[in-house]
Amino acid sequence: MRMYDIIEKKRNGNELNKEEIDFFISGYVKEEIPDYQVSALLMAICINGMTNEETSELTKAMLESGEKIDLSAIPGIKVDKHSTGGVGDKTTLIVLPIVSVYGVHIPKMSGRGLGYTGGTIDKLESVPGFKFSLDKEQFFSTVNRVGFSITHQSGNLVPADKKIYALRDVTATVESIPLIASSIMSKKLALGSDCILLDVKTGRGAFMKDFESSLSLAKTMVEIGKSFQKETVAIITDMDSPLGNAVGNSLEVIEACETLKGKGPEDLTKLSIYLAANMLYLAGKGSLSKCKELASNAIQSGTAFLKFKGLISEQGGDTEVLDNYVKFPQAKFSEEIVSDSEGYINNLDAEKCGLVSVILGAGRENKDSEIDLSAGILFNKKRGDYIKQGDTIAKIYSSDTKKLALAKKVMYESFEINKSTPAVLPLIQARVTKDGIERFIR
Amino acid sequence: MRMYDIIEKKRNGNELNKEEIDFFISGYVKEEIPDYQVSALLMAICINGMTNEETSELTKAMLESGEKIDLSAIPGIKVDKHSTGGVGDKTTLIVLPIVSVYGVHIPKMSGRGLGYTGGTIDKLESVPGFKFSLDKEQFFSTVNRVGFSITHQSGNLVPADKKIYALRDVTATVESIPLIASSIMSKKLALGSDCILLDVKTGRGAFMKDFESSLSLAKTMVEIGKSFQKETVAIITDMDSPLGNAVGNSLEVIEACETLKGKGPEDLTKLSIYLAANMLYLAGKGSLSKCKELASNAIQSGTAFLKFKGLISEQGGDTEVLDNYVKFPQAKFSEEIVSDSEGYINNLDAEKCGLVSVILGAGRENKDSEIDLSAGILFNKKRGDYIKQGDTIAKIYSSDTKKLALAKKVMYESFEINKSTPAVLPLIQARVTKDGIERFIR
Repeated sequence: MRMYDIIEKKRNGNELNKEEIDFFISGYVKEEIPDYQVSALLMAICINGMTNEETSELTKAMLESGEKIDLSAIPGIKVDKHSTGGVGDKTTLIVLPIVSVYGVHIPKMSGRGLGYTGGTIDKLESVPGFKFSLDKEQFFSTVNRVGFSITHQSGNLVPADKKIYALRDVTATVESIPLIASSIMSKKLALGSDCILLDVKTGRGAFMKDFESSLSLAKTMVEIGKSFQKETVAIITDMDSPLGNAVGNSLEVIEACETLKGKGPEDLTKLSIYLAANMLYLAGKGSLSKCKELASNAIQSGTAFLKFKGLISEQGGDTEVLDNYVKFPQAKFSEEIVSDSEGYINNLDAEKCGLVSVILGAGRENKDSEIDLSAGILFNKKRGDYIKQGDTIAKIYSSDTKKLALAKKVMYESFEINKSTPAVLPLIQARVTKDGIERFIR
Repeated sequence: MRMYDIIEKKRNGNELNKEEIDFFISGYVKEEIPDYQVSALLMAICINGMTNEETSELTKAMLESGEKIDLSAIPGIKVDKHSTGGVGDKTTLIVLPIVSVYGVHIPKMSGRGLGYTGGTIDKLESVPGFKFSLDKEQFFSTVNRVGFSITHQSGNLVPADKKIYALRDVTATVESIPLIASSIMSKKLALGSDCILLDVKTGRGAFMKDFESSLSLAKTMVEIGKSFQKETVAIITDMDSPLGNAVGNSLEVIEACETLKGKGPEDLTKLSIYLAANMLYLAGKGSLSKCKELASNAIQSGTAFLKFKGLISEQGGDTEVLDNYVKFPQAKFSEEIVSDSEGYINNLDAEKCGLVSVILGAGRENKDSEIDLSAGILFNKKRGDYIKQGDTIAKIYSSDTKKLALAKKVMYESFEINKSTPAVLPLIQARVTKDGIERFIR
């Protein structure tokens, strides 16, 4: 078998078989196939696509390239959650405690953020003392004691993905549904949970800007899950404007605490309950509507918040901050974003807000950037709200006045004030399961 | 400007501008852009194509990457000829002497062959003493004295093409009309002739297997010529079965001599006269029909053969061989290919015949292969001929009995004998000029 023929086959739009995909992945990981051949193949995949069968085989080959975690030391059903990333998305911090209340175990490995997509690990780093580098024994024992644990992604899982992702990142081959789907799913499958819940973001602040491509990604990933006999549900949710009122690491942990205490913003609370309900449903805790009730009750009763506190304590964090927010890192400077006209907030652009958060220091411009854990945005008003001239729309925080000044300028470009209300974008747009697609119009 | 954005633009099917193309080519030649980014872009070009404007800019950028030859020391109109390569194509050896009879100068740089496509340099190497490595002064003075010269391609012309071609060769990005057209035309333009005649082969033994893609390549190259104000004519000619009766280096030189003496096979004679006529036409020697007459006369009068003799002598070759063929390298062994049935020869496959010639030792399997100058095929019969059982179709020659045995087996697979005559494939299928396309049905 020759890599040349595999590239040519895909260039001509033909389907690769299992042997060809295995040859490519194992040859690349063993450094027998050079980058320049792989990038040519990735471009051909990007443009000509892959069938569901090819994407499943690619996922399998990538999965087989490295270590797989054996979760048998953790009893019961294990459910994983993955979000394709957005601005203000702190649902993991809320959903995992809720689900763990009902005895469902969630061994969660999370990454750091890059660009405006925040990483759960970065957010938790704002909790003084919190340790996210656990060895396997610590990780498993935390899951067994608390019900869930959040640790940093291990170095030995899916090496093929690491190599391929690094190459895609510099060859404009990131935007490809089979490549995105196999990258996400190979990592989820390596972790070995029984079921997977995927939150596929859609809109200006999401990787997938339009509903159709988000749906296509969701369907592809659910199909991959099916081919591995791992039940997978994908929820397509709005990321046209930021989720919740807080963007930035410590600000988001505080908002997660508030939500777990039943005082969170409506959109974040609603989505967290829905995602948690789907995980409970996957774990066999009853009908989806019953699971929604369970999720809601876990917040109302305070048990979910206690679970979160338990996690922070177990992983070495200072639990006092969760009730006394001034003990979080505090930004030195802040600025108010004030409306100069009257009307409805339209087009509150999640991508621009994400850019503002990166400028403020809350996100990484590149892999080596240091982040400012206290920096970020707090919204007073959101898309669709009516505001008067002089009303404060948001407050931005940073430890650097120069960054603050630049961010302020961009922040004013991130929304419009119109006389008309914006079009309604449902927060939860679709639910994709192995049985089909439910679409929600509002 | 970033290479990433250029790749992304082409991946999305958009048109690159001059600055982007220049950035890519100059960055690659200066080794500032890595192979893996270039191969991704080449694949995107391969699949998504390029407009004529892009292809012209690419040609220009490649041309500017190296030295250009100043032909002002050679008086009068200079015409270049290029063939996309085929099996048994020795027209250069016939056409150049004809054209030079009429005072048109042809400074010709030629390459070595790879695979089954023979190179003119390899063919001439079979003439004892012939020197093809000339410096610029020797090259120019030969052109001025004889009217034409054939030398080896210089190392400093179009370095971008050398680098890109080497990468295309291992990344399955060879088959792309804009990439092929810019590769050929940048080299022709670097040589600086006033007009260019292109022989675009079509059929099983050609790089372009079907008429439509051959036409597309021809049109693209004529457009490039136009954008450089270099009048360019492309002739699309049959390469479904071999041209002439001889395949192999010394065998082809002998056949060229015979053709220059008016005793060549019909197809080769006809095509040589037509190509020569088109070069004379480009040089302003009158109407195409008048130029055909001129070309024909140059053979009949023996003046073209004298020109060929003059070239061999000027470049140090032994001119005696041109009349006494036994002084050419002689193969030690030969085998007859005999018909086992009666009927018409159908599907005499030029690609298979080319493969036979490579097996015999007449062509290179890779860049470092040594070739056997005496090896090759001589056909007694061609496509469409009626033969009886026991008739000799061809004779194959080699200096290696093992190679001969293997080649014989493949040779028998290269044709069919049927009761019906094969479909008529016109030798000269179309003529593409800046003013349009003439198509010839027979």
